[in-house]
Amino acid sequence: MRCRKCGEKAAINMRQHKLALCAPHFLEWIPEQTERFIEKYHMFTSKEKILVAVSGGKNSLSLWDVLNRLGYNADGLYIGLGIDGGIAYSAKSQHLAESFAEAHGLHLLVHDVTQHEGASMPAAARLTQRGRGKPCSLCGVTKRHIMNSTALEGKYDVLATGHNLDDEAAILFGNTLNWSVGYLARQAPVLPASEDGLVRKAKPFCRLYERETAAYALLRGIEYIYEECPHAEGSTSIYHKELLNRMEADRPGVKLSFYLAFLRAKEMGTFAEGARSELNALRTCPRCGQPTTVPGLCTFCRTWESIRERQAGHDRND
Amino acid sequence: MRCRKCGEKAAINMRQHKLALCAPHFLEWIPEQTERFIEKYHMFTSKEKILVAVSGGKNSLSLWDVLNRLGYNADGLYIGLGIDGGIAYSAKSQHLAESFAEAHGLHLLVHDVTQHEGASMPAAARLTQRGRGKPCSLCGVTKRHIMNSTALEGKYDVLATGHNLDDEAAILFGNTLNWSVGYLARQAPVLPASEDGLVRKAKPFCRLYERETAAYALLRGIEYIYEECPHAEGSTSIYHKELLNRMEADRPGVKLSFYLAFLRAKEMGTFAEGARSELNALRTCPRCGQPTTVPGLCTFCRTWESIRERQAGHDRND
Repeated sequence: MRCRKCGEKAAINMRQHKLALCAPHFLEWIPEQTERFIEKYHMFTSKEKILVAVSGGKNSLSLWDVLNRLGYNADGLYIGLGIDGGIAYSAKSQHLAESFAEAHGLHLLVHDVTQHEGASMPAAARLTQRGRGKPCSLCGVTKRHIMNSTALEGKYDVLATGHNLDDEAAILFGNTLNWSVGYLARQAPVLPASEDGLVRKAKPFCRLYERETAAYALLRGIEYIYEECPHAEGSTSIYHKELLNRMEADRPGVKLSFYLAFLRAKEMGTFAEGARSELNALRTCPRCGQPTTVPGLCTFCRTWESIRERQAGHDRND
Repeated sequence: MRCRKCGEKAAINMRQHKLALCAPHFLEWIPEQTERFIEKYHMFTSKEKILVAVSGGKNSLSLWDVLNRLGYNADGLYIGLGIDGGIAYSAKSQHLAESFAEAHGLHLLVHDVTQHEGASMPAAARLTQRGRGKPCSLCGVTKRHIMNSTALEGKYDVLATGHNLDDEAAILFGNTLNWSVGYLARQAPVLPASEDGLVRKAKPFCRLYERETAAYALLRGIEYIYEECPHAEGSTSIYHKELLNRMEADRPGVKLSFYLAFLRAKEMGTFAEGARSELNALRTCPRCGQPTTVPGLCTFCRTWESIRERQAGHDRND
C-alpha cells in the first residue's frame, strides 16, 4: 500500500475514505481535516479563547496538539477524578497531561474533585444509588458541570472536547435505540452558548475515527494513557461501540455515513420539536447559578450535597 | 418453567415479556394481543373488508388464521412470483396457501406475475440493473403495486400484511442508519388510505416477535414454508435482523423497546416534516392510475415496461 500523495510506503490505510497515507502526510492530513470541520461547523476562530478538556488519553491530547499546531489559543483543563483501579489511572493520566503541557509550553488548569467536591469519584459513586448502578453517569454529570463552570470563570469562549466519530456514533446509536428526541436534538458538532450560562461546546474531532486519532498520537510521539477508565468496563457506550465496530468491519464507512446522515436529517429540522421542548425547560440552579432542566438544585449540586451528607454520616459511624 | 395462567408446563417462555405460557394459553394470547393492537392503532373493524397478503410463510398464514378466529372478514391474496431456487419455492408456497384456504373455507385470490406482467420475478430481475443488484427491491415494488391494485379493484377497505416485530425493527434499523426521514415518517402500524388511490395498510403483528408467530403456526398445526426466499440471502434486511438478534440476546426486549420508542417519538411529531414533504410529492401514474412519487410512469410501470422490451429483444436474438 502506497501513500496517495507521494507514493512512499503508507503508514495507514483508511478503508472508509479509500485513502492510504505515509506518516508525514497523515500528520498533515489530520490538522487539515480538523480545520475543515472547525470552519464547516463554525466552531470557533483563532481570535477566541479555547478551553480543551484534557483527560490524558489519545483523543484529547491529540486535539490539544492539533489546535496548537493550527495556531489556536487553547488552554487545557484536567479534571482529577481520584481513580486508581489498580493502575493508578488518574495519577498516571494527570502526569501525562502535565508533561504534554510542559513540553509544548501550554497552560493546563487542574481541578481536583476530591479537593473541591469533597470525595473522589469512586468514593462518591459508592455513596449514591445513581453512582453504584452507573458510575459513568455520575462522572459525566460531574465533569460537564466542572468543565462549564471552569470555562465560565476563566472567560473562555468555547469548550473543546476530544470526542471522535466512534464516540459520537455510539452516543447517537444509544439515543436512537431509545429514540431520546431531546438528546438527539442536542447532539451536534457544535452547541452554541445559551443565555442561561451554558458555554459553547465544540467537538473538532467528531468526524475522525478513533483509529485515526490513535494513529495520530502514535505517529506524533504523544505519550497518552492506553487504558480505558477501569470503571467504564461493561458500560452501554462500550457495548454500542463494539456493535458499531462489527458493522464497520462488514461495511467500511457505516459509522461515518450514519453520523453524517443524522446531521443532514437534523438540518432538515427533524428534531426541532425536541430541541424546543428542551430549551423551554431550562431553569437556573439556586446554588451554582448554572442552567438545569430540573426544578430546584441542579443534578450536580443535589447529587454532591447528598454525597457529602452520606460521607459525613459514614465518618461519624466509623 | 410453568404457564403464568394455569401452572401447567409452559410451551414458550417470552423473556422480553417476562411471560411463560402453555400451548392452549399461548394460542389464546396471540389473538388477544393482535386484537389489542388492531384496536389500539385503529387498523380496521369487523364490518370492513380485509385483504390479507399471504405468502405461504408463518407470519401471513398465522395472521390470516388469527383474523379468521377473531371473526374478521378477510380474504387472502397470493402473488405467484415464479421462484424455483432448487426448492420449488413458489409452487410449494402457493400450494400451502391454497391448502390453508380450502381447509378453513376461506377465499384466496391468486395473481401470477409471469401471466400478468409477462416474466417471472427471477427472469425480470436478470433483465434490469435494479434487479441484478437487488432482486428484493424489484420484487418489493412489484408486490406493493399488485397488492394495492388488487385491493382497489376488489373494493377492500384495508390491506393487511404479516410483518412482525423483527421485520419492523429491521426496517426501522435500516432507515435509521441512513436517516431516511421520508421512510421513517411513513413507517407505522397503520397507514391511512390516501385520496390519490393508496389503500389503507395495516400490520396487526407489528408488535409480535417472529419467534412468537413461528410458535403460533407450529402449535396451531399450520403448515407453512420453512425456507426463506432463496433470493433474499445476503440481503440488507437479513443482515439487520441478525444484528438485532445479537442485541436481543444481550438485552431481551431491545427490539420491542426500539420500535415502541420510535412510535412514541413519531407521536410527538418528530418526523412530521418528512411526512409532509413525501405527501406533497405524490403524483398519478398516467398508465396505471396509481399514486407515485416520480414524474411520468410509476416505478412499477416503468420497470416492467423495460423488462418486457428487453425480453422481446432477447427473444428476437435467440
